[in-house]
Amino acid sequence: MMAHHPSSVALAIPSWLGQRVALVDGTARTGDEEQMRLVLELAAENSRRGGGPFAAAIFTSSGELVAAGVNRVVPDSAPIAHAEIVAIATAGQRVGTWNLRSVGDLTLVSSTEPCAMCMGAVPWSGVRSLVIGARDADARSAGFDEGNKPDDWPEHLASLGIDVRVDVLRPAAAAVLADYAASGGPIYNG
Amino acid sequence: MMAHHPSSVALAIPSWLGQRVALVDGTARTGDEEQMRLVLELAAENSRRGGGPFAAAIFTSSGELVAAGVNRVVPDSAPIAHAEIVAIATAGQRVGTWNLRSVGDLTLVSSTEPCAMCMGAVPWSGVRSLVIGARDADARSAGFDEGNKPDDWPEHLASLGIDVRVDVLRPAAAAVLADYAASGGPIYNG
Repeated sequence: MMAHHPSSVALAIPSWLGQRVALVDGTARTGDEEQMRLVLELAAENSRRGGGPFAAAIFTSSGELVAAGVNRVVPDSAPIAHAEIVAIATAGQRVGTWNLRSVGDLTLVSSTEPCAMCMGAVPWSGVRSLVIGARDADARSAGFDEGNKPDDWPEHLASLGIDVRVDVLRPAAAAVLADYAASGGPIYNG
Repeated sequence: MMAHHPSSVALAIPSWLGQRVALVDGTARTGDEEQMRLVLELAAENSRRGGGPFAAAIFTSSGELVAAGVNRVVPDSAPIAHAEIVAIATAGQRVGTWNLRSVGDLTLVSSTEPCAMCMGAVPWSGVRSLVIGARDADARSAGFDEGNKPDDWPEHLASLGIDVRVDVLRPAAAAVLADYAASGGPIYNG
């Protein structure tokens, strides 16, 4: 039987992630590669700890970390708990606004090109830049489906004033996915 | 200054919704129209209480309510807290699985055609049917943006074995949106 309808849905931030983030909080990490390096560390760590091999983080224009998220689909029974969704939700609640645009030019750094759901979330978040490591093809090679994205997503984001930068540390980002696949981690939407 | 990075992100289920859902829990509501009627009541109530004019619910094939969600973007500072996302996340945690397909043929009933983000979430949820009230055009008339959806979304969902039924109580569904716009409710992504 089903449990009672809950009074809230919690997207947990694992304690290791909270501790990891506390270590870098207040530290400026400037440049796409330096920010991506942190995100890839989080993706690899999440993968080792039973989550999906994906992470995302949001940074201010001066390189301060606003929020980080990792994929929690399997451990949290949460099909929508992709890294970008968790990072955006965390950023909104941390800053106290649904419109991150109101707090400056923020950048979402994602270890892998966002899936259809997460790409749809990018404009709603108010971030001004999207930085991507691995491509869809790398995710598909690991067995993951990225969903049905419109082909013109880069142009659409550009038309909204959102700058897109791809292939940042792509080989390292793709390696996180390949390592996960090689380890036999669950593919929850293949 | 920002608060500390949280240990979890809560998508709150308002207490009125919990109470409303408790009243119907265990009651079979069969047929798209009867299910949509409940969803539209929730959308209107959420709108009156400071949320967005959107609701969604997930039902079993025998018409039992699994989970309901309402739009909490503005009150919860959560750009991703659309009704469908909240309903899917709630259903997963309530049933205890990331793959709702494993618990039977579930139906997601949405007061308005899902936006790009929520449409992307539908395949990840594992629901087998999607029932829609208002159309994109009705949401746009109220000032809301629905995002950049691929034109072939109905065919794509069909190709995944997800049955799509549109225009269920559409005039009543569109009226919830129009009432919200007339009342001057915030348009958070216009």
